Amino acid sequence: MKNVLRVNVGTGQISSEPLPARYERLAGRALSSRIVADEVPATCDPLGPFNKLVFTAGYFAGTSLTSAMRTSVGGKSPLTGTIKESNAGGTLSMKMALHGYRALIVEGDPPSNELRILHITREGARLEPAEDLRGKGNLELAGILRERYGERAGMASIGPAGEYFMSASAIAHSDAEGRLSRVSARGGLAAVMGRKGLKAIVIDDVKGVVPKAVNVEAWRAGQRQYTTIVDKSPFTKMYREVGTSGMVRVMQGNGGLPTRNYSNGHFEGFEGISAETFVQNIVERGGAGLQTHACMPGCIIRCSNVYPDKDGKEIVSPVEFETIGMMGSNLGIGDIDVVAQLNRRCNDYGLDTIEMGVTLGVVMESGMIPFGDGEGAIRLLEEVGKGTILGRLLGAGALVTGKTLGVRRIPVVKGQGLPAYEPRAMKALGVTYATSPMGGDHTAGHTVRFTKDHLNAEEAVQVSQQAQTYFTAYDVMGVCIFALPQTRDNMDALASAISGLMGFQITEEEIRDLAVETIKLERAFNRAAGFTSAHDRLPEWFRSEVLPSVGHAWDVKDEDLDKIFA
Amino acid sequence: MKNVLRVNVGTGQISSEPLPARYERLAGRALSSRIVADEVPATCDPLGPFNKLVFTAGYFAGTSLTSAMRTSVGGKSPLTGTIKESNAGGTLSMKMALHGYRALIVEGDPPSNELRILHITREGARLEPAEDLRGKGNLELAGILRERYGERAGMASIGPAGEYFMSASAIAHSDAEGRLSRVSARGGLAAVMGRKGLKAIVIDDVKGVVPKAVNVEAWRAGQRQYTTIVDKSPFTKMYREVGTSGMVRVMQGNGGLPTRNYSNGHFEGFEGISAETFVQNIVERGGAGLQTHACMPGCIIRCSNVYPDKDGKEIVSPVEFETIGMMGSNLGIGDIDVVAQLNRRCNDYGLDTIEMGVTLGVVMESGMIPFGDGEGAIRLLEEVGKGTILGRLLGAGALVTGKTLGVRRIPVVKGQGLPAYEPRAMKALGVTYATSPMGGDHTAGHTVRFTKDHLNAEEAVQVSQQAQTYFTAYDVMGVCIFALPQTRDNMDALASAISGLMGFQITEEEIRDLAVETIKLERAFNRAAGFTSAHDRLPEWFRSEVLPSVGHAWDVKDEDLDKIFA
Repeated sequence: MKNVLRVNVGTGQISSEPLPARYERLAGRALSSRIVADEVPATCDPLGPFNKLVFTAGYFAGTSLTSAMRTSVGGKSPLTGTIKESNAGGTLSMKMALHGYRALIVEGDPPSNELRILHITREGARLEPAEDLRGKGNLELAGILRERYGERAGMASIGPAGEYFMSASAIAHSDAEGRLSRVSARGGLAAVMGRKGLKAIVIDDVKGVVPKAVNVEAWRAGQRQYTTIVDKSPFTKMYREVGTSGMVRVMQGNGGLPTRNYSNGHFEGFEGISAETFVQNIVERGGAGLQTHACMPGCIIRCSNVYPDKDGKEIVSPVEFETIGMMGSNLGIGDIDVVAQLNRRCNDYGLDTIEMGVTLGVVMESGMIPFGDGEGAIRLLEEVGKGTILGRLLGAGALVTGKTLGVRRIPVVKGQGLPAYEPRAMKALGVTYATSPMGGDHTAGHTVRFTKDHLNAEEAVQVSQQAQTYFTAYDVMGVCIFALPQTRDNMDALASAISGLMGFQITEEEIRDLAVETIKLERAFNRAAGFTSAHDRLPEWFRSEVLPSVGHAWDVKDEDLDKIFA
Repeated sequence: MKNVLRVNVGTGQISSEPLPARYERLAGRALSSRIVADEVPATCDPLGPFNKLVFTAGYFAGTSLTSAMRTSVGGKSPLTGTIKESNAGGTLSMKMALHGYRALIVEGDPPSNELRILHITREGARLEPAEDLRGKGNLELAGILRERYGERAGMASIGPAGEYFMSASAIAHSDAEGRLSRVSARGGLAAVMGRKGLKAIVIDDVKGVVPKAVNVEAWRAGQRQYTTIVDKSPFTKMYREVGTSGMVRVMQGNGGLPTRNYSNGHFEGFEGISAETFVQNIVERGGAGLQTHACMPGCIIRCSNVYPDKDGKEIVSPVEFETIGMMGSNLGIGDIDVVAQLNRRCNDYGLDTIEMGVTLGVVMESGMIPFGDGEGAIRLLEEVGKGTILGRLLGAGALVTGKTLGVRRIPVVKGQGLPAYEPRAMKALGVTYATSPMGGDHTAGHTVRFTKDHLNAEEAVQVSQQAQTYFTAYDVMGVCIFALPQTRDNMDALASAISGLMGFQITEEEIRDLAVETIKLERAFNRAAGFTSAHDRLPEWFRSEVLPSVGHAWDVKDEDLDKIFA
C-alpha cells in the first residue's frame, strides 16, 4: 500500500507513483488533506479545473482489523469553499489497499461532458465511457455496476445530484453487499467528481494481496488488544442494538434535538422517530430488515441497519440518527417511515441527508410547505432528483436556498448545514461547528462523551479542542469514530498495531500530534482561501434567540473561539 | 444641514440629533461609510436586525450647484457581504438638506411584515402604513406617491425585488419630474430597506430653507469657477449629446465590450445598440423622448435621457451604457429597443440592471435560453417581478444563479457582477473591480480617462489607485462623477466652494485624503467582516482565457494587487 494512482481526466494520463517519502507516515485524513494542501490552489474554484479529488486509505485498509477501513475523500468543497475531508465506510479503500494504493488522485478537466468510469484493475486503470449511466440513481446504479464489474468490486459513485454539480451532493461508496449506501456526505464532493466527469470509480476485487505486517508481533498484540476492547465495550453493545438511533432519546432528554428549523430542542413527536419505534418496526416487519449490519466486511460493531417497509421490503440502508433528527424533528415530522423514504431518495440521488434536512427546514420556515408535511418534503426531494429549477436551488444547500427565499434563520457554519445536535444545548459541539476547518460538522469533534456539562460555555472550547483532536486522530488512522469512545484511552493498542503493520514507530502521542498537525494544515489552507476568525462563528441568531428547551442562548465568547488551535 | 434623523423601525422611536462634532467635515460616502463602520457590526447578517440603512447628503445638497446633489446610501450589502455605498442622482438628498438633515439612519427590526412609508415632514417624521402598496412596481408607485405626497416630494422606494429581499434589488430615487428612476443600484440595499419594512421614504417639499454659505465670497468664487469649467468642457458636450451611450463605440473599438457572457470583447451587432442608433431613435420617434435630461434639478450636464417606443411613448428613463452593454452585447442582443424593454422592467421591479445583465448572461451560458433571445430575457425578468422560484433565483444575482445552474464562468468579484468593461481589455479597471471595497464596480474608480494604455498590466495598480481616489472624492462630496473628468484638475474650485459653504477650511489635498481615509475605513470594515486579499481577485478563468478581441488574458500580478491602499 505504498503507491499513489494519479489520474488526469483531461489528458487521459494515468500513472502509478510510489508514495513520496514525506508522506510515508500519513494515511486517511492526514494524507488526503496533505495532498490537497500541497496540490490544490487554496483560492481555486472548487468546480474549476484546478481542484482535485483525493481518495486515501487508512493504515489498516486491507487487513482484517475491525472498524478500521474508512475511506477518506478530500478536495476543496463547493459547499463551504474550505478544504474538505469526508470519510465513509464501505469497501473502497480496502480494494485500493489490495491493489497497493494508499492514495488516488483525480485531477484535470475532462475534454467533454461525457460521463466516464474510472476502472482500476490488476493491469492498471482506464477511463471507460459511461454516458449511458447518466441520470441513474445509486439504487439502480449499484446493480448495474455489480453486474458489469463483479459482485465484489469496490465502488464509489455519484447520483444525479453530482451530475448537476450540486453543493449538497454526496459520494456513495459500496457497502459489504455492494449497495451504494455508505456516504462521503458532507461538502458536495460529488459535484467535484461530476466536474471531473466521473460517474463512478470501480476497483476490481483482488484476492490474497493482503498487506503484510513488518513487525508481526507488535501488529498482532495491538490488533488483539484493540479488538478485545471494542468487542467488550458497552458502547459497542449499544451500537449493535440500536445503531445511532439511540441518540433521539438522548438529545430529546437534554433538550438538544433540533426541532422545526432549530426553533426548539424538544420535539413532541419524538416517540415516532425514536430507537424503540425504529427497532420495533425492523423486528416486527422482518423481511429484508436488519437491526444490525456491518458496512465494512468484518466489522464487529455493526452499527448499520436495513430498514424495511410494512411488507418487509428494503426502504433504505442505513438510517442514521443525524438523518432522523434533520429529516424528522427538524422538519416537525414524527414518522420514522417518512424519514426512511426521504433518506432513500437522498441516497438514490446522491445527496447529503443532513444538508437536505437543513435545507427542507429552511424551506418550511419560508412557508413554501408547512412543518410536518412529509409528502411535501418527499415531493421537494424528487424535484432535486429531477433537476428542476426548484430542485437545483434546494440542491445548492441550505444557505443558498434560505437566502434566495428570504429566510433569516439559516443554521449553517461556513455555508454547511448543522447536524442534529443543538449547539445551544451542547455548547462544546457548537464550538466544533464554529471552528472546525470543515464547517458545521459533528464528526469533526463530537463532544457528547467528552463532557457531562453540555451547557457550560466556559469549558466549551477546551472540550471541543480535545474532541476535535481525537476525532481527527481516528480519521487519520481510518478507524471508525464508533470505535473511538471504546478505545480512545487505549490508543497505544492502535499505535502498536500501526507500528507493527507499517514498519515505522508511532506512539499514541504522535498520533494525536499528527491529528493536530492535520487540523492546523487544514486551517492554514482555509486562511489562504480567504477564511478568517469572522467565519469561525455560529449565525448571529443563535446568540439572540434563547432555545426554549434549555433556556440558553449561544454564549461562548468570540475571543474564546479564537483561542482554539491558535 | 447639521442634523441626523434616526428612525428605529422596531421601537418606532424617531429622533433628530445634531450631527456629532467628529462627523462635521464628513458628507456623502465619507459620512455614510463612517456611520456604517461605527454602528453596524461587520460580521452581522445584512438582512438581520443589526444592519442599518444610511442615507447621506453631499456638501452641496440643497444649493443650486450643478451636478452636485448625489444621495449616498450605505449599509452592509446582502449581495457582497462587504460594506456598500451606492449613490444616485435625483432629488432625495436635496430634500433632506432642505429639512436640515445631512444623514438619515434607519435601524432596528420591524414588529411585523407590514410595509410602511417613512414620511418626513416639516413637523417631524412618522411611519405610515403602506401594505396597500405591496407588489407595486416603481412605475406605478411613483404616480401614487406623487398624488399622495405632492408632485415635488423627494422619494426613495423599493419595488417587488426589494420586498422579496433579493440581492440584486435596487433603491429607486425620484428624479426631477418625480419618476422613480435614479437608482442606488448595486449591492442589494433595497433588500435591506425591505427588511426594515420600508416601501418608500418620502420627504415633503420645503421651500426657502436653502443652506446659507458661511463665507459667501469663497462659496461664490468656487461655485463660479466650477460651473464655468463644467459648462465649457467637451466632456459635458458629449454627455449632453449622447449621454453615456457613446461608450458602446469606444468599448467596441478597444475590444472591451463584454459579449456573450464575457467570452469576447467585440460584438458584431454593436451598431444596433450604439449611440447613433439610440439617439436617432429618440429624435425620429419624438413624443416623450428626450435626448438630454437632467436627473437633478438644475444640472447643466444633462446626461440623462428618456427613451420612447415607436409611437413616441416613454419606455424608460434613462438608458445608460452599462445597461446597454450588459443587457445588449453581453446577452448577444443587438437591438436597443429590447435593451430598453429589459431596462424598463428592471427599473419597475427595482433591480440592478448590471447585476441582472450579468445574471442573464450566465443563464444563457447555462443553455436555459440561447444568447440573443431577447424575448426569453424579458420573460425571465418577468419571473423575477412575479417572485416565482426561478425569479427568486435570478434575483439572487449572478453568483448564486450561476453556481446553482452549474455554470463555471461567472464574472463577479466579491459576489457582484462586473459591469460593461472587459477587465482584460482595461486592466486598471480590472484592478478596481478586484480591489474596490465595493466588489466589482466601475464607479469605484473608472480608469478610462486615467490612462491611455489600457492593456498595460504593470501600471494598472497605480492607475486604479489614482482613479479610486478621485472617484471616491467625488462620492464624498456628493458631486456627480460625470463632472469628474472636467474638474478633477481644478478641485480647488470645489474645495473653495465647500469651505465657503460649510464654514470649515478644506483643501483639494484634504479632499483626496478624506477619500483615501474613506477607502481605508471601508477596507477595514471588510477585513473585520472576513475579507482578505484572497477576495481581491478576479475569477480564475479571466487569467486562463485569452480575450479574443485583444489577445490578452488577465495578467496583473496578485502581489501587485495586494499593494493597493496597503
